[in-house]
Order: sequence, then structure tokens, then C-alpha cells
Amino acid sequence: MESLGEGRYRGLVSPGYSIGEYPNGGYVLSIALRAVAAELPLPDPLAVSAHYLTPSVHGAPVDLAVEVIRAGRGTATAEARCSQDGVERFRILATFGDLGRADGATAELGAPPEMPPLEDCLGSDVGPGSAGDPMPNGLVATVRERFDNRVDPATAGWIRGERTGRGVIQGYARFRDGRDADLMAMMLIADSFPPAVFDLATGGWVPTIELTVHCRAHPAPGWLRCRFSTSHLRDGYLEEDGEVWDSAGTLVCQSRQLARLNRARR
Amino acid sequence: MESLGEGRYRGLVSPGYSIGEYPNGGYVLSIALRAVAAELPLPDPLAVSAHYLTPSVHGAPVDLAVEVIRAGRGTATAEARCSQDGVERFRILATFGDLGRADGATAELGAPPEMPPLEDCLGSDVGPGSAGDPMPNGLVATVRERFDNRVDPATAGWIRGERTGRGVIQGYARFRDGRDADLMAMMLIADSFPPAVFDLATGGWVPTIELTVHCRAHPAPGWLRCRFSTSHLRDGYLEEDGEVWDSAGTLVCQSRQLARLNRARR
Repeated sequence: MESLGEGRYRGLVSPGYSIGEYPNGGYVLSIALRAVAAELPLPDPLAVSAHYLTPSVHGAPVDLAVEVIRAGRGTATAEARCSQDGVERFRILATFGDLGRADGATAELGAPPEMPPLEDCLGSDVGPGSAGDPMPNGLVATVRERFDNRVDPATAGWIRGERTGRGVIQGYARFRDGRDADLMAMMLIADSFPPAVFDLATGGWVPTIELTVHCRAHPAPGWLRCRFSTSHLRDGYLEEDGEVWDSAGTLVCQSRQLARLNRARR
Repeated sequence: MESLGEGRYRGLVSPGYSIGEYPNGGYVLSIALRAVAAELPLPDPLAVSAHYLTPSVHGAPVDLAVEVIRAGRGTATAEARCSQDGVERFRILATFGDLGRADGATAELGAPPEMPPLEDCLGSDVGPGSAGDPMPNGLVATVRERFDNRVDPATAGWIRGERTGRGVIQGYARFRDGRDADLMAMMLIADSFPPAVFDLATGGWVPTIELTVHCRAHPAPGWLRCRFSTSHLRDGYLEEDGEVWDSAGTLVCQSRQLARLNRARR
């Protein structure tokens, strides 16, 4: 990503993070967040909210305009406008802080998702959008080539048309190239699994209207355990809640998005 | 609220919605959202994200600057900057749509919270910030005079110093003047109960860093049933998830905020 000065950056939406016709929403968010991070004096994204306007396109430059709204001692907030060829794709608000300096009470009522061992999970080479099962338009979800997502088979029946109706998809995730995920990568991880709504209803593309990610702790190295769930699908609108836990059993991020289940084009 | 033209509005932060020293965050958000609604061609707030910068103050004007980012057929998105005396208090992104035109699959896995009958719940006249138990600084949470919040006593032990450790506060809510809540009121409802974290740990003010509200259906008339929960308190950072269900048993809104549990000043 190139800095053009005065909070302006230019990057490229790589075709290597597609989910078919469009780039992965978490991927384009992570590009914008890198620009925001470069402008803020605090290191960690605490809360990042993105409202998606028009779908980004592959292989085209993206222009980022960052405005630092307030940079305080404890938190700093910025906005970024993200455009391609003069058309705004999405806008974000991001509040950063320093989790290393966080100090206060702790009470953890949750736990990492219970899953079978890694070797009993399904690899990224199965399911819609994988190389073995291209999407209706012939495209492959290349984001799966960047991430090694191992899906718990108990949550993958929908791939064979056998939905459980629980609305949960969970599994392990890490970068395929072996590097460990940092907090910035959580934007990507939070959108790297197939939509959990596919366990509830058939559908095609599931465009995100709004996505918020809360980062809670720096991840320990190793495989991440991820759980995504949709409990309220109404008239095609749905929420997807995500939790990402690290190898030490710590919750590192929570995500929630509002999305639409569009009809399949098949 | 007065329109000054070109997306600019001026309102007043009434002292009638305090939660002690500061105005209720959902209340000031609802002021901003009214200005956004006046600028957008679609009626219903689908997703509203607010990042809080500095606390608003009582009894002072608030200046709202709305920018319509994109107004499409199905959704429309705007931003609002909210300032008092030239100091920006919070900024929001809001995407509106038309739930009356929503069309698609439905699968509801949730249910309204199970609660005792209304007459067995606690009235708004108990607990910290009520007239009977002013806050340490002597202030009263006047927002409780606007809302009739009836708290399920099974989730109110913390008022007597008997925390259950479940991190849940639930109850009934409606406007005290008897008018029925609409979707715009959900911003207020989503922040009108005491923080659920008080069932996990002692603390003072719980400032919101980021709050997102998703509206899912127009509420039926009558009492709303609300459930707020905090499951992950870590180093003083916490999420609070809210659900608001209407009298017909429909989920009308979900909220999530990232907040800080500050130490009590007592």
C-alpha cells in the first residue's frame, strides 16, 4: 500500500482473496484498517465498524482517505472512506487502543468451541467455492487458498444438502503460509468461513450490510478456533456472530454482521 | 430539533435522560439518528454504529452534520458528526432500508427471555441511580423517569450486592408516558437498563466505546421484553449484547456494545 500523504493511501484489491464474483468483505476491510493504523498513535484495533455501500471489484486499485477524528491517551478514533475508481465501496469507523496496557477486572463465562481434533476436520478443499466445487459462475473462492480453514464436520452437513438447522459453522483457521495471525488479521478471519446461514436455508451470495469486529486480546501463536452462528433469519435479513479463540483458550475477537441472504442464481 | 439546511441540525441534550453525570449514550444516539432519518429516503434504521469520542454534557445544544453517503433503492447509508460547543462527541454510520418490503427466508432459533409476570418484577424506583438510591455524586439517572423498566428479580441480586455471576440483566420496558416504541426508540431501549456487567463485577461508570444496533422488525404495541448479557469481561473491557422482543414474541432489535468497566469512585 502506497502513502500519498495527508491520510491518503492507495492499495490494490488482490484477486487472491475472492469469494467468487466479489472480494471477501473482511479482506477489503483489512486493507482499509492498515491505512487507519498507519495514521493512529495507538497499536490495537478495539472496535471496527464497516458499512458496505457497493461491492468492491477484483484487481483494481482502492483509494483510502483516513480522517483522524480524535486521538486521546487511551483511545483513538478514525474514519476511512474506501473507493475504487471514484465510487465509494464502504466506509469504516475504527477505535484503537493498547490492549497491552489494559487493566481491570476479568470474568470469562465463555469457552472455546468444542471441536474434534484438527485431523478429523474438513480441509479448505471441500464445499462451495473450493477448487473441487466452483461457484455457479465458475469462480473459485481464492480466499480459501490464503487460509487453511478446517471445518468441524458436525457443522458441515449443509455442503451435502443436509442442514442441521442449528445455524452454526465452526472450525480451525490459520494462514496457509504458516505465519501467525495478529489482531489486524482478525478482520479477515472473521469473514473467512462460509456463511453460517447456509446451515439454515439455501441461498446464493450473502452480502454484508454492516460488520463490526471487537478485538479483545493478542492471539497466541498457532491454530485459531472459530465459531460462527446465525440465530435470527427474518425475511432474508440475518445476523452472523463470530468468536475467535486462540490456541491458549483466550477469546481474541468477536464479530457481528448484518447481512442479506440472496437467492441462489443456479 | 431544528434544521439549519444542508444536512445540519441543532438539538438539545435534555437533562431528562441522564444516567448520572452524563447523558445516556443511547439517548444522544437517538437524537443523531433523527437527523439522519430526515435526510434519507428510506424509513427504517437497519444498522446503526456509533463510536463515542468524548462524553456528551447535559442541557447543552448538540450540532449534527449529516452526510448522505449513498442512497440506493434497497438501502441508504449516511454518516453523522455530533458535536457540542465545537467538540465532537460521537460519530455514527447508519444504514437505512424498508423492513416493510423485506422478502426472503425466515428461521428463528431464538425466543423471548423467560421472565416472571410483570407484577413480580422490580420497578424503576429501585437500584443505583433511582430516586431512592442516588449515585455517589448525588445525581439520579433521570432516564429511568422516561422508561418504565421492570427488572426480573432473578437478575437483580447485584443491587443488594448479591451477584449471580451470570452476567445477565433482563426485564420489561416501555415508555412511561404510554406511547408505543418505534424502531427509532430502539437506540434508547438498547441502553436503558443497568449494565449487565454489574452482575459480574463491581464498578462505577461503564462508558461505551462503540455501540451497534440492528433493527429487525417493527415492534408490536405493548411491553417490550429485553435481555442484556455480558459474557467476556477481560482487563476491564466488556461486550454487552442486547435483544429486544416485542409483545408478539418477535425479535425487533439486537445490540452489541464494547465498553469499559471503570472503578467506582465511592
